[in-house]
Amino acid sequence: MVCNDDGIFAPGIEALTSVMQELGDVLVVAPDSPQSGMGHAITINSTLRVHRISHSDRLTQYSCSGTPVDCIKMAVSKLSERPIALIVSGINHGSNSSINVIYSGTMSAAVEGCIEGIPSIGFSLCNYSYDADFSSCLSYVKRIAELVLKNGLPEGICLNVNIPSIHISKIQGVRVSRQAKAFWDEELDERTDPRGGKYYWLTGIFKNMDDGIDTDEWALANNFISLVPIQIDITAHHTIESLKMWDFSIPDNT
Amino acid sequence: MVCNDDGIFAPGIEALTSVMQELGDVLVVAPDSPQSGMGHAITINSTLRVHRISHSDRLTQYSCSGTPVDCIKMAVSKLSERPIALIVSGINHGSNSSINVIYSGTMSAAVEGCIEGIPSIGFSLCNYSYDADFSSCLSYVKRIAELVLKNGLPEGICLNVNIPSIHISKIQGVRVSRQAKAFWDEELDERTDPRGGKYYWLTGIFKNMDDGIDTDEWALANNFISLVPIQIDITAHHTIESLKMWDFSIPDNT
Repeated sequence: MVCNDDGIFAPGIEALTSVMQELGDVLVVAPDSPQSGMGHAITINSTLRVHRISHSDRLTQYSCSGTPVDCIKMAVSKLSERPIALIVSGINHGSNSSINVIYSGTMSAAVEGCIEGIPSIGFSLCNYSYDADFSSCLSYVKRIAELVLKNGLPEGICLNVNIPSIHISKIQGVRVSRQAKAFWDEELDERTDPRGGKYYWLTGIFKNMDDGIDTDEWALANNFISLVPIQIDITAHHTIESLKMWDFSIPDNT
Repeated sequence: MVCNDDGIFAPGIEALTSVMQELGDVLVVAPDSPQSGMGHAITINSTLRVHRISHSDRLTQYSCSGTPVDCIKMAVSKLSERPIALIVSGINHGSNSSINVIYSGTMSAAVEGCIEGIPSIGFSLCNYSYDADFSSCLSYVKRIAELVLKNGLPEGICLNVNIPSIHISKIQGVRVSRQAKAFWDEELDERTDPRGGKYYWLTGIFKNMDDGIDTDEWALANNFISLVPIQIDITAHHTIESLKMWDFSIPDNT
């Protein structure tokens, strides 16, 4: 099953679908419009619509009015006629490395697949342009998908794969990495509308605070494909014991 | 600084704001309409508006057209006139325990505060009704906020606090817990519109798969307030070594 967050007509999902057709029958359920930055949003205060775009023995495509996570829920519980062997999301137009994994609709689709108990991978190419060249990375995308189909993934784990935007001959291989410590230093671009009202565009500068050579940012900067295992249990287990020392009792005078 | 996902006019944020005023000056920046289930969504394809609702020495309130995460970014980089000592989000109308932490706009506001390097807590009351009684839990909310102000939190860690909807006299205390393994078994409620088109409501049944007595679900079921430390590094570090054994090389014939 294939999903994305750039919408069903983006070149990235077309490239991913073509590779997955080499591995088996494909069900595409993807947003009917771009949903970048939607994170793990779901649609609970309004309704969802789906529209079948194509149907054959080997490939069926649906667009959905909701978010990437809605698309996964729709595919798993309504649209798929048999158990789904693999969920792939992307190929995203732009990086989802380091802290971007938390904002990414592409990765949230993979995380939702993982919550549903299905092996799931998010793929992103570090090139934001609409007409980015996806052909160069497809042999690696296929290889990683094959390995996940063959080996499975541990329970509660999915993969965040980011691919440098370079020719395949320059790619140094796949490097299993950790999420780099980084953040966006926001700038709100303030503008004035024709009626004098203020409005803002959210923008910012990416700041990598992590010089570890085991990070996804290091891998990408050194022409490797980064592969980060992501977990759905986000408990900070190592801090539980120290937090238990806090005195949470309510003073008598309150 | 106070945020939420139910919108600036929800009773839960009013209760939280009143408690925070006992601890210091308060800046409220919250969505102008309900944003439940928005996860870590940000607004990048459209613009943001803010509207100042009240202003005094001790309390300033803004509504924002964006998501809970947008509100945090707006507060930190634009609206706050001095460094923010503490970010609290909520009090959510409904549970954000176990897997719900990933879908929650309330918790995503706290996670965003944590990414920005500010001690952050999300509070939720396990009662979905609009007119839930928040008064019973406020002494605990204040106590937890005081402890975080006094002790700080480790880098990259924020707190997910869920409160059972019972009288304060029945609350057994605060229990530091881990996120229970659970998921939503989705049902898509299919309906037909007046023109004959199909549409869906996303609904489902919560399934707790975890009988551990160290989980947030156990704490809540046993009349404890659950407190789960949450981390923004979602790398599954323990799986990195085994994934490095995979052979990612591309076969020659592709």
